[in-house]
Amino acid sequence: MEKTMNLSYVIGVDMGGTNTAFGVVDARGNILYRGEISTGDYVTGEEYVEALGTAINTVVEQNGLTGQIKGIGMGVPDGNMNDGTIVRAANIPWAKHIVFPLTQQLTGKTGLPCKLTNDANAAALGEMIYGSAKGMKDFIVITLGTGVGSGIVCNGQLVAGHDGFAGELGHVITIRHNGRTCGCGRSGCLETYTSATGVARTAREFLELYPGKKSLLRDINYRPITSKDVFDAAEKGDPLAIDIFNFTGRILGESISDFIAFSSPQAIILFGGLAHAGKYLLEPLNEAIDKNILHLYKGKTKIIVSQLNDAEAAILGASALAWE
Amino acid sequence: MEKTMNLSYVIGVDMGGTNTAFGVVDARGNILYRGEISTGDYVTGEEYVEALGTAINTVVEQNGLTGQIKGIGMGVPDGNMNDGTIVRAANIPWAKHIVFPLTQQLTGKTGLPCKLTNDANAAALGEMIYGSAKGMKDFIVITLGTGVGSGIVCNGQLVAGHDGFAGELGHVITIRHNGRTCGCGRSGCLETYTSATGVARTAREFLELYPGKKSLLRDINYRPITSKDVFDAAEKGDPLAIDIFNFTGRILGESISDFIAFSSPQAIILFGGLAHAGKYLLEPLNEAIDKNILHLYKGKTKIIVSQLNDAEAAILGASALAWE
Repeated sequence: MEKTMNLSYVIGVDMGGTNTAFGVVDARGNILYRGEISTGDYVTGEEYVEALGTAINTVVEQNGLTGQIKGIGMGVPDGNMNDGTIVRAANIPWAKHIVFPLTQQLTGKTGLPCKLTNDANAAALGEMIYGSAKGMKDFIVITLGTGVGSGIVCNGQLVAGHDGFAGELGHVITIRHNGRTCGCGRSGCLETYTSATGVARTAREFLELYPGKKSLLRDINYRPITSKDVFDAAEKGDPLAIDIFNFTGRILGESISDFIAFSSPQAIILFGGLAHAGKYLLEPLNEAIDKNILHLYKGKTKIIVSQLNDAEAAILGASALAWE
Repeated sequence: MEKTMNLSYVIGVDMGGTNTAFGVVDARGNILYRGEISTGDYVTGEEYVEALGTAINTVVEQNGLTGQIKGIGMGVPDGNMNDGTIVRAANIPWAKHIVFPLTQQLTGKTGLPCKLTNDANAAALGEMIYGSAKGMKDFIVITLGTGVGSGIVCNGQLVAGHDGFAGELGHVITIRHNGRTCGCGRSGCLETYTSATGVARTAREFLELYPGKKSLLRDINYRPITSKDVFDAAEKGDPLAIDIFNFTGRILGESISDFIAFSSPQAIILFGGLAHAGKYLLEPLNEAIDKNILHLYKGKTKIIVSQLNDAEAAILGASALAWE
């Protein structure tokens, strides 16, 4: 008698600008097997899919999982979750100027159903299935990395918008009129302040703005200051570093107050490098929310730092798509 | 043989601060019969429900519709759609300090299933079933009346939030830091600028700010200026009145640019008195969106003025709840 095959595993793909990592994930969120290819070393999308599909097929076959994979979920920069395309992704040479049918092609190569979404939405799904948002129907994940992204869940569903591109909260601009110039071509975007690069930018600004103020950050002059430097200095009690986080947390808290007025989420989950700044970010952030939020919402929305392991979260989040 | 009774009608209730109007509505959105009671002339919620229920039962019986009503939908200020309560409604004496189980009590009195939501959400449902949002799954209705409210639909569902109070876009505050004081106790709320009262406030400000500038609005000194006065003056080519609308439309457009980054709606539908200011509001508004929106969303979201008859829309919108 033939053994019944269960579709017990999914594959999560985390497509970054440099590398694409993937893993075979079980229903409990364990990454059992992994693989990786370069993202950018291809001339065409077809070549990229050929390499990725081959790598996935190899891992599946070598581990005796043929016929047991339910599908593939991908976290993709500039991915359109409504139609599975990657749309003019600025950081990926072969995708820079085109709309490429990524999921369709990968299904062709692997024979597996395939869905994609952008990184922040994948993080939101990861939190909902494996992380802090288990059991929640309304929450927002804000990713604080090189940029600022967001994945919004309302009524238990990802908010995709009519075009698949909802949730660009890193690019709300009313927070600072005529503020810092952003890579998107506009001014005052949230991510120019509350991303890792935003924090480094604030550090440079504050060092110039307060020349009389002593700071450990002044000792770093042989390379550009990073948000990690600011965190390390804050840990040593450096007042300027603490001021930088106060400024960052306050701006993020003001913005979050407005986000809450939109979807009244049960929680805001902070994800990515800067979320680990802990109290230096969270204290001014919570204070700003308390000060700025509409009375109706006061004290209702939890601010949570993601507990998912950063290295695994992207793959887990993407894999969550494949269970749907 | 007994005739089969179809549940062919619903009742829509528009509860305002002064009066509560209701109507029997058919599936095509015709209001067949109407009734009205006072909202505030009662000491307790029980008395209000007794009066409203009696009025509804009377209209139903008198028109031979007993057994043909599918349910009651209510648009209620400070209504919590998740549990059918009215929550400390500032403008209604008997509801000012309590949480009252409105739908539960009205069901008890009428024997009909009953749901409620706030006015702006009711407007959104009305647009989805009878109005400009027919067939849309992602849109936002912004009500521009005495205040500014919003009803947000994502994935074809009203966004209620975890507590039933999502969609207070009139109270986003990042648009103007330390801006005008708002009735909510904070500063800079959108509704202090882009409501009918906000426009009147801008008129008073501008008249003071530009004392040398001639304006028809200076002739009104025997009573407070209204937004209608500003519209009438704009129609006569009054430059100050046109400036007032430019200022209003610009602020609303900047805010809408950020709202679009949240849920990427197919349309923003403007509803209520100020929406009828037509080109005076829409031209600067569209210009501000074009200038401020993230490139990704450019030209995708339609800005629409509601085509529903203002006098009927509130009842229709509320009735839409009862079909769900």
